[in-house]
Amino acid sequence: MVERDYTMKEAMMFSQRIGQLSKALWKAVEKDWQLWIKPYDLNINEHHILWIAYHLKGASISDVAKFGVMHVSTAFNFSKKLEERELLAFSKRDTDKRNTYIELASQGEDLMQEMIERYHDTPHSVIDGSLKLRELYGKFPEFLEVMAVIRTIYGDDFMEIFEASFKNIESKFNEENHIVEAAEK
Amino acid sequence: MVERDYTMKEAMMFSQRIGQLSKALWKAVEKDWQLWIKPYDLNINEHHILWIAYHLKGASISDVAKFGVMHVSTAFNFSKKLEERELLAFSKRDTDKRNTYIELASQGEDLMQEMIERYHDTPHSVIDGSLKLRELYGKFPEFLEVMAVIRTIYGDDFMEIFEASFKNIESKFNEENHIVEAAEK
Repeated sequence: MVERDYTMKEAMMFSQRIGQLSKALWKAVEKDWQLWIKPYDLNINEHHILWIAYHLKGASISDVAKFGVMHVSTAFNFSKKLEERELLAFSKRDTDKRNTYIELASQGEDLMQEMIERYHDTPHSVIDGSLKLRELYGKFPEFLEVMAVIRTIYGDDFMEIFEASFKNIESKFNEENHIVEAAEK
Repeated sequence: MVERDYTMKEAMMFSQRIGQLSKALWKAVEKDWQLWIKPYDLNINEHHILWIAYHLKGASISDVAKFGVMHVSTAFNFSKKLEERELLAFSKRDTDKRNTYIELASQGEDLMQEMIERYHDTPHSVIDGSLKLRELYGKFPEFLEVMAVIRTIYGDDFMEIFEASFKNIESKFNEENHIVEAAEK
């Protein structure tokens, strides 16, 4: 028998907490997401793949699967469908011939751009539900405890992609501001 | 146009954070849950209904739907199946004739008890992934930021059921200790 530092009561209470909270949070995120993508004839997996390709400036299928928390076959099959719709393209990289990479086609880029512009056309309960914390903290909450748990479960790889996606969002928006500023001159 | 205190960049970064974290966390919880219930021929919704009935000592179908984050029809239909398997029973309460209530049948009670006893027969990545925080904090993490967001989205009702479930787990385990202690005397 394995020795454990925690009691069964603690395990049951924690299991109840993380089960209920993660289900409720994900169902809210999923609902917001579905409303946002509804006009575009995409399912969540398809949009997630495009989103990952957009924010990582291209990605391997295995990174898409890891970061999208989906099977490799799901990532591949939906990518194939998105290729047929000319939203993304497959490629090999000279530095890594073993993996298949995807990147957004120009139609896919335009679609992602349009979806960001129309983000506020649909409600986002998780944003609205976080505004009071934003007021208190001066910024949106970071969920550091959740990040610590995810890091332990999914490993540093997952967190590196997570961090990279933020850097790319940051630089994309800075570029845009730069373009706006340059245009205003 | 609605005035917003936050920029589109902030919205996109937060949306990315909460989307990725909640999906990854829920998928880990879901995987653990599926492994745990696998020997019992139950799906997650069915087990969730039994679990809610167990921890709330009976519940209305609408409370099951709310707390289980499922449609009322899903809650009702799966409850019906569980009734056919003699794991739970339907009833009306004299104090509330309008709602249908469920409570565990004795076979359902036994099943829940057995599943708790066999909890550690399968891996629980979210528990293992939280042990370092438990070491640091002296207790399992509480995810208070997530709770604040959930409270805003799902309302006080949801949180009251959430708190009630903890009180019941607490009292159940205290009773058991009491029984063990009494038996040891």
